[in-house]
Amino acid sequence: MAVYTDVTADELAEFLEGYDIGELLSYKGIAEGVENSNFLLHTRAGTFILTLYEKRVAKGDLPFFLKLMTHLAAHGIDCPQPLKDNSGKTLGMLAGRPAAIINFLEGVWPRKPNAAHCAGVGQALAKMHLAGRDFPMSRANALSVAGWRPLFDSAASRADELQHGLRAFLGAELDHLESNIWPENLPQGIIHADLFPDNVFFLGEKLSGIIDFTFACNDMLAYDVAICLNAWCFESDHSFNVTKARAFLNAYSRERELSAAEREALPLLARGAAMRFLLTRLVDVLNVPPGALVRPKDPLEYVRKLRFQQGVASIRDYGVEASGLVA
Amino acid sequence: MAVYTDVTADELAEFLEGYDIGELLSYKGIAEGVENSNFLLHTRAGTFILTLYEKRVAKGDLPFFLKLMTHLAAHGIDCPQPLKDNSGKTLGMLAGRPAAIINFLEGVWPRKPNAAHCAGVGQALAKMHLAGRDFPMSRANALSVAGWRPLFDSAASRADELQHGLRAFLGAELDHLESNIWPENLPQGIIHADLFPDNVFFLGEKLSGIIDFTFACNDMLAYDVAICLNAWCFESDHSFNVTKARAFLNAYSRERELSAAEREALPLLARGAAMRFLLTRLVDVLNVPPGALVRPKDPLEYVRKLRFQQGVASIRDYGVEASGLVA
Repeated sequence: MAVYTDVTADELAEFLEGYDIGELLSYKGIAEGVENSNFLLHTRAGTFILTLYEKRVAKGDLPFFLKLMTHLAAHGIDCPQPLKDNSGKTLGMLAGRPAAIINFLEGVWPRKPNAAHCAGVGQALAKMHLAGRDFPMSRANALSVAGWRPLFDSAASRADELQHGLRAFLGAELDHLESNIWPENLPQGIIHADLFPDNVFFLGEKLSGIIDFTFACNDMLAYDVAICLNAWCFESDHSFNVTKARAFLNAYSRERELSAAEREALPLLARGAAMRFLLTRLVDVLNVPPGALVRPKDPLEYVRKLRFQQGVASIRDYGVEASGLVA
Repeated sequence: MAVYTDVTADELAEFLEGYDIGELLSYKGIAEGVENSNFLLHTRAGTFILTLYEKRVAKGDLPFFLKLMTHLAAHGIDCPQPLKDNSGKTLGMLAGRPAAIINFLEGVWPRKPNAAHCAGVGQALAKMHLAGRDFPMSRANALSVAGWRPLFDSAASRADELQHGLRAFLGAELDHLESNIWPENLPQGIIHADLFPDNVFFLGEKLSGIIDFTFACNDMLAYDVAICLNAWCFESDHSFNVTKARAFLNAYSRERELSAAEREALPLLARGAAMRFLLTRLVDVLNVPPGALVRPKDPLEYVRKLRFQQGVASIRDYGVEASGLVA
């Protein structure tokens, strides 16, 4: 929920002269997106999203994100497509920030996902993984297992402010995840790495688009599956809903079958995925700047999810068969 | 910059069933509006604004605001028009809040108003004053002179935290404004009472709409003029721009001539108008709740404006003749 940088009509109009989308009719800052400033534009040509990339996003990564969206859209994935300006570029400068315009996707993100939504996101995630196979660029995942210790170190001394014993809990889990158990030979590819419900649009129960590729990177495809299990299959009372998990995993597997090694690794990957979001949320909540316009997300939600995943013995606990997924 | 209440797609879709605007395609929280939660809606029928009225707005005042917009729009004023639901009502309930849908106005608000913008707002303000003459409802201005002492009392003890001597400065000014000098016999009518640049849209230099009537009330029409002088005619370095003031006042007077008494009272009204916004900003800045998603506006901007207005001898200091405004 943020607009960090405001833009004057004059500078925006000048920026838009570089694009073939007609006169500016209106623009509104959108109360969505934590990393960037986003505006909804109306021009004579239609509706668009203007993104100003703030400093939390490394400028060197922007071509990766923009070319990835272009690639995925060209391969039939419903995701925003960056507009080319009159010189063929998708990235410009506006108000001192790197800026891009993407087409607007209709649809609403599900505040309370049901099993049909989970099936939709499972199918779309698998299709995205397949469409990403021949994408020529790559980007390391800075928030995989090697990136967690620095986050823990920066937050450990104050972790117990949130919950008594949290520091020891996180320290023990991190020791476990770092003890050479993290998988290394699972199928790799482009992952979204942040496919939470607010990044997936639906019209009714039909998925209409996937947005926000600012965490996309190369990593194990099954790690993306694990992130979604945590993000989509828990209820607001923190219980795990196996019906949703089964719908998600079956829909994924119908597009791209999970290997035996991926299925076996999934509970461990889900522990790691829970740790990753727990740690970044913990760092964020301990470092809310004065006057922040963003309400940090609750780290304790992910403490509960991590505890659940610690108790998962096999993929059967997610409601599907270990030997292969039943449609 | 705020969305206080989120809305699920299901409850919004149910709410929209009461209106004849077709299927919901998307909705985005807008980072504008301090008092309410605003969403930009796309439906099969077009683009709309959905407002959820939060608790700072008295529910009993909502029919006044909605009927006023309907009245003004019917009298040719470019302002949002509340949609009637299938039972003819403009006000419903959504997510536990009173809610209304208004049509969307294209246009952008001027971040750096020029003289042409000031002329545009002068003309539109006068037309709005004329269009409001036969509006049958009325609403007292709770933020006129009688409302300032309670605001001062609630903030006085901490005023010097912002600027040394601010408490004494405000106390002396308030004593002055309360000493039976506040005008009582000037022409009254419906005033907007908050016509800042972010509430006025332009397409190029042509005014396309006036929005946000949540402070509208009955008061002296010239007080609305005074509010705009403060809001539109100062530069970002706090200097007063007489070219803009002249453009604003001349454009206003071409639609509705200011009487001699109104012209004489204008500097005093501008002091009062500066005091009103200074006090509410001061109270707001001293009472920012933890986790607030709104960045409070700077009270000290209005200290400077108040000091300027204290030095104004007559309307001639605004760049126009005291005896009548020259076009």
